[in-house]
Amino acid sequence: MVQMSKRSEVEPFHAMDVLAEATRRRDAGHPVISMAIGQPAHPAPKAALDAAREALGHGRLGYTDALGTVSLKRAIAAHYHRRHGLSLDPQRIAATTGSSSAGFNLAFLALFDPGDRVAIARPGYPAYRNIMAALGLVVVEIEADADSGFTLTPESLERAAARDGKPLKGVLLASPANPTGTVTGKARLKALADYCRHNAIAFISDEIYHGLTFDGEETTALEVAGDAIVINSFSKYYCMTGWRIGWMVLPEARVRAFERIAQSLYISPPELSQIAAEAALGANEELDGYKRAYAANRALLLDRLPQIGFSIASPMDGAFYAYADVSRFTNDSMAFAQRMLAEINVAATPGFDFDPIEGHRTMRFSYAGSGADMEEAMNRIARWLG
Amino acid sequence: MVQMSKRSEVEPFHAMDVLAEATRRRDAGHPVISMAIGQPAHPAPKAALDAAREALGHGRLGYTDALGTVSLKRAIAAHYHRRHGLSLDPQRIAATTGSSSAGFNLAFLALFDPGDRVAIARPGYPAYRNIMAALGLVVVEIEADADSGFTLTPESLERAAARDGKPLKGVLLASPANPTGTVTGKARLKALADYCRHNAIAFISDEIYHGLTFDGEETTALEVAGDAIVINSFSKYYCMTGWRIGWMVLPEARVRAFERIAQSLYISPPELSQIAAEAALGANEELDGYKRAYAANRALLLDRLPQIGFSIASPMDGAFYAYADVSRFTNDSMAFAQRMLAEINVAATPGFDFDPIEGHRTMRFSYAGSGADMEEAMNRIARWLG
Repeated sequence: MVQMSKRSEVEPFHAMDVLAEATRRRDAGHPVISMAIGQPAHPAPKAALDAAREALGHGRLGYTDALGTVSLKRAIAAHYHRRHGLSLDPQRIAATTGSSSAGFNLAFLALFDPGDRVAIARPGYPAYRNIMAALGLVVVEIEADADSGFTLTPESLERAAARDGKPLKGVLLASPANPTGTVTGKARLKALADYCRHNAIAFISDEIYHGLTFDGEETTALEVAGDAIVINSFSKYYCMTGWRIGWMVLPEARVRAFERIAQSLYISPPELSQIAAEAALGANEELDGYKRAYAANRALLLDRLPQIGFSIASPMDGAFYAYADVSRFTNDSMAFAQRMLAEINVAATPGFDFDPIEGHRTMRFSYAGSGADMEEAMNRIARWLG
Repeated sequence: MVQMSKRSEVEPFHAMDVLAEATRRRDAGHPVISMAIGQPAHPAPKAALDAAREALGHGRLGYTDALGTVSLKRAIAAHYHRRHGLSLDPQRIAATTGSSSAGFNLAFLALFDPGDRVAIARPGYPAYRNIMAALGLVVVEIEADADSGFTLTPESLERAAARDGKPLKGVLLASPANPTGTVTGKARLKALADYCRHNAIAFISDEIYHGLTFDGEETTALEVAGDAIVINSFSKYYCMTGWRIGWMVLPEARVRAFERIAQSLYISPPELSQIAAEAALGANEELDGYKRAYAANRALLLDRLPQIGFSIASPMDGAFYAYADVSRFTNDSMAFAQRMLAEINVAATPGFDFDPIEGHRTMRFSYAGSGADMEEAMNRIARWLG
């Protein structure tokens, strides 16, 4: 029998396991409500669907340049000008086959060698940890709690480096963050980027929840650090999860190195998704409507979760997650999530995904679903635990 | 400035660079004919386009299970029954975001640790070499020439292991092969798989050109080795390059390990592509028509290339490539490819992509384009060199 590699022994992404089980139950006829994964209830914006439909009638969809079409790169550069007043050379944009599927993997391969130490926040997105581990990097998880404003700071990085006696090669920060919802404002982002530059640390800014900030200022790292590696996606604000399309903004002198790896590793991002994504960039009116619906869901959860006995454990400034402390009911979030799905058909993600140390007593609830579903889910949980 | 990793120093995939330059020239109004990349001239089959169009009207396209929808897995299992008389548990199928973009990367991560030695044929597909290098594997290139029937054999593997004094952990064979077109028949494939099993070597069978065999028998490794890792794709026979969708067949006991990595690294394959791919599986009548057109192109190149003075360097049994020896005209295939594109607007790939040692005197011509384009390209080259 085929032997597997040592590095294949990564943790499962439990949210995806919950999704698979939820899908099985739904297919079997159960009335499942999914709050397990970060997926908007809405389809891609109408303009994107129209552009895709038209492209389907126009002959072959094929390989594009490895870092995407010129047309999409220009449209993304224009987006930065419109939204942040930045003038970017479109050549610095790289379209990717999703951010997890390509952006992070590409960045980690391009920037880090095995044994290099890269800091992320705990709690944080589990795929960071799992991809880094598979690529031989040393993941330095730094607690992001109330004391540090639920984000990474120069002080917390400094403490970690001092404690380990080894320098960091990279720092990856998400703002808005998953699962905490923390939005790191301009001043703090600049302090962090400056610290990285002074210490020759690569700074990767995960901005895939941009467009979904409810409280605080939404800053791209490009405003405060021209040499940041920015990763973004059409999955969240643009409602295009299933299209697997995202982008990066790269320092000009490093584009070619990223391109060389992408040529072999990804060939090119899906062409239809590039066409649809370009159209989605102009659909703010429709998408801001969805954002208002998330805001209403957020208000509902801020009200109902504490009533149920789940205390809100982090800021919820942005993204579409409530990260809740469920220790009043369980000390085993994994079993709790399984029971909740089996008994009341509500899927949510055990905190263990995001925090291997404290996650046994937390859960993440995605509020990207419809208002009616969110309300029904809260009612079911309240009855179940009441 | 951000430092790049040592492992980012992979070779470019020159075919993709030629594609990028060809696209630039075409956009600038030049009458470019591309024989540079393995991309059918035809769109996806009508049934696939219809299924995609319908899905666009049916609400959200979202994340699916990490290894794909049950429906697509069942359809792929049924395909193996129809085509090869094999009964496969659909659970052994994993849909992937393309084969390069996901299949190979996933297989290499799951099966091999840094320092492990994996054999491939030279000449061979460059992304194998580049992805393996980025992941820290030791690539053992084994010459596949007339003596070995242009494929890997137990004897050539044995010689390589003896020469290096170190055992192989994996063997990757493509049939039909890129760029040589070699189809490895059932007996030879079985001998190779048996050798791997007896020596505890993982056997990866790249079958992405299945459906495109013009001479010889097309065997899946699953017929001769139940524990092979099979990689396939909808890009070639099914004309769906731009959709980034492929699949793997895995040993039952190893599916979960692959799934765990895929959850973090890929989340899920693009849903619209999964829907379209499932429909494409039934479109043999349309696709076999395209295959007949490739066969005519193949006959044209078998006739014209030697007349031009490019001798055919390998079998051309399958896939849609002619691998030609161009040493009568150049000893620098890279410069030759650049000149050919700049002077007569014909794009082809320098052999250096496929063979770092002998590729300076070879070129690969893809004949997946239209018959008229192939004829015009041959005419231009004949005039240019005549």
